[in-house]
Amino acid sequence: MHEINATSIPTSMCYKIINTLRLLSVDMVDKANSGHPGMPLGCAPAMFVLWCKIMNYNPENPLWEYRDRFVLSNGHGCALLYSMLFLLGYDYTLDDLKNFRQIHSKTPGHPEYNKKLGIEISTGPLGQGIANGVGMAISSKKKGIDNNIYVMCGDGCLMEGISYEAASLAGHLGLNNLVLLYDDNGITIDGKTDITFTEDTRSRFLAFNWNVLEVVNGDSDINDIYEKLMTAKQSTDKPTIIFIKTTIGYGSITAGKSSVHGAPLGQTNTQILKEYFGFDKTKSFFVDKDVETYFDELKKQKVLFYNEYNAKTTTNTTTNTTTNTTTNTTTTTLITRNNISNTINEIDKIKNQEKDYATRESSNIVLKKIAELLPDIIVGSADLAESNKTMVTNTFINKNDFTPKYLHYGIREHAMCSIANGISSCDIIPVVSTFLVFITYCLAPIRMAALSKHQVIYVLTHDSVFLGEDGPTHQPVESLTILRSIPNLLTIRPCDLTEVSGAYQIALDYNGPTAIILSRQTLPNIQDSCSLKMKKGAYIVYEPKSITSESLNLIIVATGSEVHLAIEIAKKLDINCRVVSMPCCELFDKQDCFYKEEILPKNVKRMSLEAGLTSCWYKYVDFTYGIDEFGESGKMVDIKNHFGFTLDKIVEFIKYKI
Amino acid sequence: MHEINATSIPTSMCYKIINTLRLLSVDMVDKANSGHPGMPLGCAPAMFVLWCKIMNYNPENPLWEYRDRFVLSNGHGCALLYSMLFLLGYDYTLDDLKNFRQIHSKTPGHPEYNKKLGIEISTGPLGQGIANGVGMAISSKKKGIDNNIYVMCGDGCLMEGISYEAASLAGHLGLNNLVLLYDDNGITIDGKTDITFTEDTRSRFLAFNWNVLEVVNGDSDINDIYEKLMTAKQSTDKPTIIFIKTTIGYGSITAGKSSVHGAPLGQTNTQILKEYFGFDKTKSFFVDKDVETYFDELKKQKVLFYNEYNAKTTTNTTTNTTTNTTTNTTTTTLITRNNISNTINEIDKIKNQEKDYATRESSNIVLKKIAELLPDIIVGSADLAESNKTMVTNTFINKNDFTPKYLHYGIREHAMCSIANGISSCDIIPVVSTFLVFITYCLAPIRMAALSKHQVIYVLTHDSVFLGEDGPTHQPVESLTILRSIPNLLTIRPCDLTEVSGAYQIALDYNGPTAIILSRQTLPNIQDSCSLKMKKGAYIVYEPKSITSESLNLIIVATGSEVHLAIEIAKKLDINCRVVSMPCCELFDKQDCFYKEEILPKNVKRMSLEAGLTSCWYKYVDFTYGIDEFGESGKMVDIKNHFGFTLDKIVEFIKYKI
Repeated sequence: MHEINATSIPTSMCYKIINTLRLLSVDMVDKANSGHPGMPLGCAPAMFVLWCKIMNYNPENPLWEYRDRFVLSNGHGCALLYSMLFLLGYDYTLDDLKNFRQIHSKTPGHPEYNKKLGIEISTGPLGQGIANGVGMAISSKKKGIDNNIYVMCGDGCLMEGISYEAASLAGHLGLNNLVLLYDDNGITIDGKTDITFTEDTRSRFLAFNWNVLEVVNGDSDINDIYEKLMTAKQSTDKPTIIFIKTTIGYGSITAGKSSVHGAPLGQTNTQILKEYFGFDKTKSFFVDKDVETYFDELKKQKVLFYNEYNAKTTTNTTTNTTTNTTTNTTTTTLITRNNISNTINEIDKIKNQEKDYATRESSNIVLKKIAELLPDIIVGSADLAESNKTMVTNTFINKNDFTPKYLHYGIREHAMCSIANGISSCDIIPVVSTFLVFITYCLAPIRMAALSKHQVIYVLTHDSVFLGEDGPTHQPVESLTILRSIPNLLTIRPCDLTEVSGAYQIALDYNGPTAIILSRQTLPNIQDSCSLKMKKGAYIVYEPKSITSESLNLIIVATGSEVHLAIEIAKKLDINCRVVSMPCCELFDKQDCFYKEEILPKNVKRMSLEAGLTSCWYKYVDFTYGIDEFGESGKMVDIKNHFGFTLDKIVEFIKYKI
Repeated sequence: MHEINATSIPTSMCYKIINTLRLLSVDMVDKANSGHPGMPLGCAPAMFVLWCKIMNYNPENPLWEYRDRFVLSNGHGCALLYSMLFLLGYDYTLDDLKNFRQIHSKTPGHPEYNKKLGIEISTGPLGQGIANGVGMAISSKKKGIDNNIYVMCGDGCLMEGISYEAASLAGHLGLNNLVLLYDDNGITIDGKTDITFTEDTRSRFLAFNWNVLEVVNGDSDINDIYEKLMTAKQSTDKPTIIFIKTTIGYGSITAGKSSVHGAPLGQTNTQILKEYFGFDKTKSFFVDKDVETYFDELKKQKVLFYNEYNAKTTTNTTTNTTTNTTTNTTTTTLITRNNISNTINEIDKIKNQEKDYATRESSNIVLKKIAELLPDIIVGSADLAESNKTMVTNTFINKNDFTPKYLHYGIREHAMCSIANGISSCDIIPVVSTFLVFITYCLAPIRMAALSKHQVIYVLTHDSVFLGEDGPTHQPVESLTILRSIPNLLTIRPCDLTEVSGAYQIALDYNGPTAIILSRQTLPNIQDSCSLKMKKGAYIVYEPKSITSESLNLIIVATGSEVHLAIEIAKKLDINCRVVSMPCCELFDKQDCFYKEEILPKNVKRMSLEAGLTSCWYKYVDFTYGIDEFGESGKMVDIKNHFGFTLDKIVEFIKYKI
């Protein structure tokens, strides 16, 4: 066995370590009486070789920017990852392993994004990790970091459409820093993979411009695993997939069966397994002294390598990304944060001008400025750059040059948003774009961004039925409600250039994902729109000067393209009517009750006006005006008439209501 | 040129017809000043050959069950399809073409499901049509119909993940009745496809077990198109893709450029184009006499073939699917409907028993009965049969036998739901299943089902944070709100076996999609749950006998796993409390105001109780109790404590609130 950066140990010792990993994982699942023993038993050898013989990292500084990264796309196998990280000296104790899948533990049922704990990204929903890894590989290329991204995945990941989208793009971009370790065990929950999955997976990856390697005996042949990983490291122009043939539940009496995938082995079978591996069957969570010693040594070596690497890098580097052994990550982050503050200040200068714009055009103006000022940003669209108005640079990322700030994702919304999560985890802000209605193609990674609080900016244009002739397949009606339903996600629907600037300011300042919802059609400037006030989610954008809170008859709460309509209505009504612009419900929800009462006093009739579903508005208003059915293909003016979004019809409705 | 079922005409006449198709499409886009001229100019030759030389159908009976089917996956090119259907004698007039993309026209901006108009399925969102076609091909195999499914698609369709999932499964199932016509024009909206899409598409389809054919000059070489389509027809064991190299916007001055994709040519360029094709540049929507004559003859031939085919079939067939020339489809539909009524009656006999079940187990009981009784049903899961409890038969569909009623979809949620839409369009009821949280992977086809009112039943299990240890990546909190936001979709969350039976009864009787939301955990039977009353969406499931409407203090509205909790709470409170089970908000919304007032009188305090997002409940109640954040990995009991879903905590909350 070739050693690159670990102590040289005999093969028998390697197997002892591997079996320690296997049995720790099995004990974890048994103790929790919940989880997946099958994958850890099969993948422990690959995991051992990867972390102990291949990867560069430092358990004492898990945030080291130059580290190799590991993503467990088949996240259900996380008992193995936690066991590995524990042995390596990351911030886990044996008790943490014993608390596997218990509430508030460090070892939840699927990996949850926490870089300090060695969890580079949250995984579980299958296939996501592959696209996340593509995002990380792109980020490394962009930052000029010469590391590798290792993604472990299973059959399920490769059957999901996102894996094809992501792999196709990775091959296109020649991401030679990406290595996919495919746990090719031939088993899924429903049985053997051949009941549904008989494609020639090797040819598929060759078609995607990948290197394809194979380990015939992944259960035991650690030399072969090592050789193939070394070959992968040496790739100059392609990503690599290694087919690692394993036996799910290796060693157990249900080895090779789907029943071992997701159910604890139980005491008896676990004892048999321990004997099979030559371990004391009466001991649980057992780590022998020599195994401990091995990892102590390994850790020293990793730290040594880290110090040497950083010493070298510091000498050679004069850029912003200069690192030192104690504060490297903090320095980088600070620089990025300073850039963000400056950028926010600069774009705050962008306010309504003489000309009226569609908010997607306003977005283009603001985004151009952001792309000019922020070094760590990657803007892109799923083949709708011209429609989404996201083409903010003259150059774009390609396999020979990752310095540009624009990436063409192709018509791959799902992979795009998942790649964005990977990019965000590397402290680059991804701005990704498509039509609002097509969030239906990429809701899984949007949800993951929200769960993990990745700073991703979604630019979603063509935001209502008013996009016109493309018809109901392209016209969102429920999309805003869907986005607003996702915890941690800010959904902002600005009404004009001023609010668009505000929306981007909020997004740049928010430690989580933001969806900016933009119109296809031109909208009039709003006289009193305000990028500062909107940071409270909602504010009074129109009110006749003479009104007191006592004489107020009606409040219309509107967003985006309906704000100007609401103001027209308020002016036409012969009652006292306030208009509240509420571009962001989530931010309004966070305000104290005094502010809420000031903006939306309970003793005044309140009505919502938005060209979309009404159900989410009852939280704020007494009655609603919206569109609770699918759209129609037609001219905008005809659609407005059809759905009653005209001044006269709404005025009539209000007169009837109050 | 070989003729199979059309009049023999000289090649020059073929081109005249093709150019008529091209110019009708261009005129449509010009008149609407909106739409996509690029694809029709490139694809008209393939369209001509397919419809005039290859396919079997009858414009006078578009519902003929034995017809070949055509799906335009690149739905934005629909001007070409409408032009074709108009010339073929389907129920379109020249005025319909002139009304392209106008409100309430027969010719909306993307094809909208209407079999009588020759639109087999709604398309527009890219890639869907390919999976829809797979569903149709499966349906034909299941019904023993010896037809072909032709799907036209573009680059965008092939870049979408769904196309890989669907194609992989199609190859696995050996769907030799499926032919994909790939408009290989090398152009997308953002530019040339090679900026993002350089995979070896041919190898990819070979890897999927497809035949791969190519037409080098799809702009003109109609003989080659014909030959390749004939070869495809003769495939015995594989689906076929034909790469048809075309020039987007063929003949126009912007031919081959992305600018011609989605913008009208305009008067001047259209006139130049007409001259290029040898047409009178001053005439619009022009169909020459000889072209009309050709299509008159073609239609006669199609009707003749249809009559002969049916005569033959009627003689040979003695099964339920017997057809005759006048009522074939109606007969089949009637039989199916009768079966459905019988099935509903039978499953209505399934009521709460002694034993308590998880509602996913109750679903298994009911679904088994349905699968036993209904001939035209295909049940399946995205590799979660054991968890979703959908394995209701002992046999499953495989490439050699399509008679079973179960299909393993593999880990392909997106394709599964889109295939279901295709199956539904063939009058088979698809029941598809995954974890509730994974609707994020397949919301695009769920939306399409709702838009097109396909009768699809989604069985969505593991419906709340109470699934436990798998943690937040697997725990839905927002999913119910998302489903409820989709127009036309019924979302039903039953509380026990009785309501599960009711849910399936509603789904079987509903002309549209239904999502049935089921628990992982066991739930107690509810004494007064009612499968009849629930058909109004909500009903009183508990109320102390002595209460009058005047003495009522509180109404708790609950669903699914929270109904029994609500009843416990009501019993514990020292106020008069009614519990309303509201398994289906959409059905309740459809009731008259008297019923609504009877169940939820406005003068009584109302509270919702559901283990998920609260925002959708303010429409019905004064205050809410739910979970507005992501979940936690842990034991169910710990999760209940953490989120305050215990009797004591909720009672305390209510006492504070009222």
